[in-house]
Amino acid sequence: MSGLTYKDAGVDVRLKESMLKRIREHVASTRRPEVIGDIGAFGGLFAFKDAVLVASADGVGTKVKIAELLDSHESVGRDLVNHCVNDIAVMGAEPLFFLDYFSAGKLEPARFERVVAGVAAACRDAGMALLGGETAEAPGLYTGTDYDLAGFIVGAVERDKILDPASVREGDALVGLPSSGLHTNGYSLARAIVDRSARAEGIEVLDVLRLPRTELRGGTLGQALLEVHRSYLAEIRALRQAAAIRSIAHITGGGWEGNLPRALPEGLGAIVDRESWIVPPVFRILAELGDVPEDDQWVTWNMGIGLVAVVAAEDERAALRALPDATLIGHVERASGDHRVRWA
Amino acid sequence: MSGLTYKDAGVDVRLKESMLKRIREHVASTRRPEVIGDIGAFGGLFAFKDAVLVASADGVGTKVKIAELLDSHESVGRDLVNHCVNDIAVMGAEPLFFLDYFSAGKLEPARFERVVAGVAAACRDAGMALLGGETAEAPGLYTGTDYDLAGFIVGAVERDKILDPASVREGDALVGLPSSGLHTNGYSLARAIVDRSARAEGIEVLDVLRLPRTELRGGTLGQALLEVHRSYLAEIRALRQAAAIRSIAHITGGGWEGNLPRALPEGLGAIVDRESWIVPPVFRILAELGDVPEDDQWVTWNMGIGLVAVVAAEDERAALRALPDATLIGHVERASGDHRVRWA
Repeated sequence: MSGLTYKDAGVDVRLKESMLKRIREHVASTRRPEVIGDIGAFGGLFAFKDAVLVASADGVGTKVKIAELLDSHESVGRDLVNHCVNDIAVMGAEPLFFLDYFSAGKLEPARFERVVAGVAAACRDAGMALLGGETAEAPGLYTGTDYDLAGFIVGAVERDKILDPASVREGDALVGLPSSGLHTNGYSLARAIVDRSARAEGIEVLDVLRLPRTELRGGTLGQALLEVHRSYLAEIRALRQAAAIRSIAHITGGGWEGNLPRALPEGLGAIVDRESWIVPPVFRILAELGDVPEDDQWVTWNMGIGLVAVVAAEDERAALRALPDATLIGHVERASGDHRVRWA
Repeated sequence: MSGLTYKDAGVDVRLKESMLKRIREHVASTRRPEVIGDIGAFGGLFAFKDAVLVASADGVGTKVKIAELLDSHESVGRDLVNHCVNDIAVMGAEPLFFLDYFSAGKLEPARFERVVAGVAAACRDAGMALLGGETAEAPGLYTGTDYDLAGFIVGAVERDKILDPASVREGDALVGLPSSGLHTNGYSLARAIVDRSARAEGIEVLDVLRLPRTELRGGTLGQALLEVHRSYLAEIRALRQAAAIRSIAHITGGGWEGNLPRALPEGLGAIVDRESWIVPPVFRILAELGDVPEDDQWVTWNMGIGLVAVVAAEDERAALRALPDATLIGHVERASGDHRVRWA
């Protein structure tokens, strides 16, 4: 039985990167003077009147498949919103409003309501208006009773408050905040692992998900996989008060190498001490069940840290004081080449 | 062989309406002071600084299935953008920026690029920035090589320029603008009709789509079904110069009864003369092949008119002069009850 990779599971992270390169020119062709910066940031910036609007679109991936199996639909609604909130908060923006897109082969009103209830609850938590959305019934497009979910957020930031990776300096401190689990990334790999594990043991997928596990203090893998994507809005606000934030990375699809460099300027990289925090059991369990290669774990999952703030070395203590569950996980160093995250 | 309805085809328009009612309270719970009006408008309104942002989310439904069959991916990209542009233009807004969501079981770079090329081209046409987007690979979520596509638009309008259905008066004129075809609505019904027709004749679906037809002057049903959703931005701008627009309806999902009343205040309805324009052949062909009940045609498809502007009776001539292909299709009248569109 060979080790399962994210690619085996049907998701090719490199392919997606190459695809984004292909569309760069098309996107550039639509540029307006109000657009600030290039694509590749966590949120798009659009200058409007005397402020800058920050917008982002995202989905929850195949976490919906786990939610469906375990009948947990409010939670994916919250996942969707929190993912989007984080993506604009790391640009320095405060959320203004949200729109959702819900699409299924067959609309099920009760399920849809539960998803939107989760979306609305997370919008309230972020002080954000749920301004609209689209509900589509697309027979034949989805497998069985599956549905897909996408979200769209708009926030605002004063022009001089935009968090800009260009401000990052060699020696800056990397402050990590714990994730609540996989957040919304790497679920296709997690699902492939659970499927294979069920087949190997001759049991049902639901049994794998519902088995109480000592590593999870009696909790189940299903519960751990459905933990809601943590919103870091309160923490980012607190950090802003306590320290001068240089930039922030939201560790999502593409894992560490795919996200941390997005918060750094060219020529700089990160040295990260993986011993500085304890990788939560859910990642260990999945890695073991799937015999997932170490490298693949770190480019797929957040491995226990969902957000990394870059602050000046002299702000390190103030940052850690402001964020009770934060950890100093590394520093910014000079770097060249494709790999810009180095493990200490 | 009984007549096919949209519901038979797997799409239940009434169900969707009842679903939207279920989520109303959740949405209301997220309200902020900047939010203007209630849900149900074509675009959400959010006051920002001294202007109002207008946002909307939409998809192209299962038109992607036809695009896939006929390998026409740029066109659905354009469909997506134009649908969204119209939805905020009917609120009085000018487009600012756009984000797309593309999701597939397996990402195909060339196909994805063609979709985004279409999105970008339509964004340029509307003078709008493609500010971001999300590309998701979700193994097992979609049927075969299917993909789904959603779009998010943000525009702006000065507060006193918002087109408000409350300004509509009894006797106002209804000015209709031709559609280019089904636009992006009613494709599940169209597909069911084509499927059934193929089975009945013992031929392939592609043969039905590729057969040259005299009613289409030698063109094919496939071509007619892939005609790009028309953008009415230029027409709305021209109309704004020529006349005082009271409100505008974009005839999309839900057809006439589902959309025209959205541009009217309570207590008023529309009397529409269906003889005032010629229903284009694509609708007649589909209706005949599927033996679709008359009523069902008009609550599913736009039947040849994609946009209806409401102007004061005294502005009727100026409006028609400003819009060379427009037609006077009816008037506003008092109405009560569920049905607010009456056929003359």
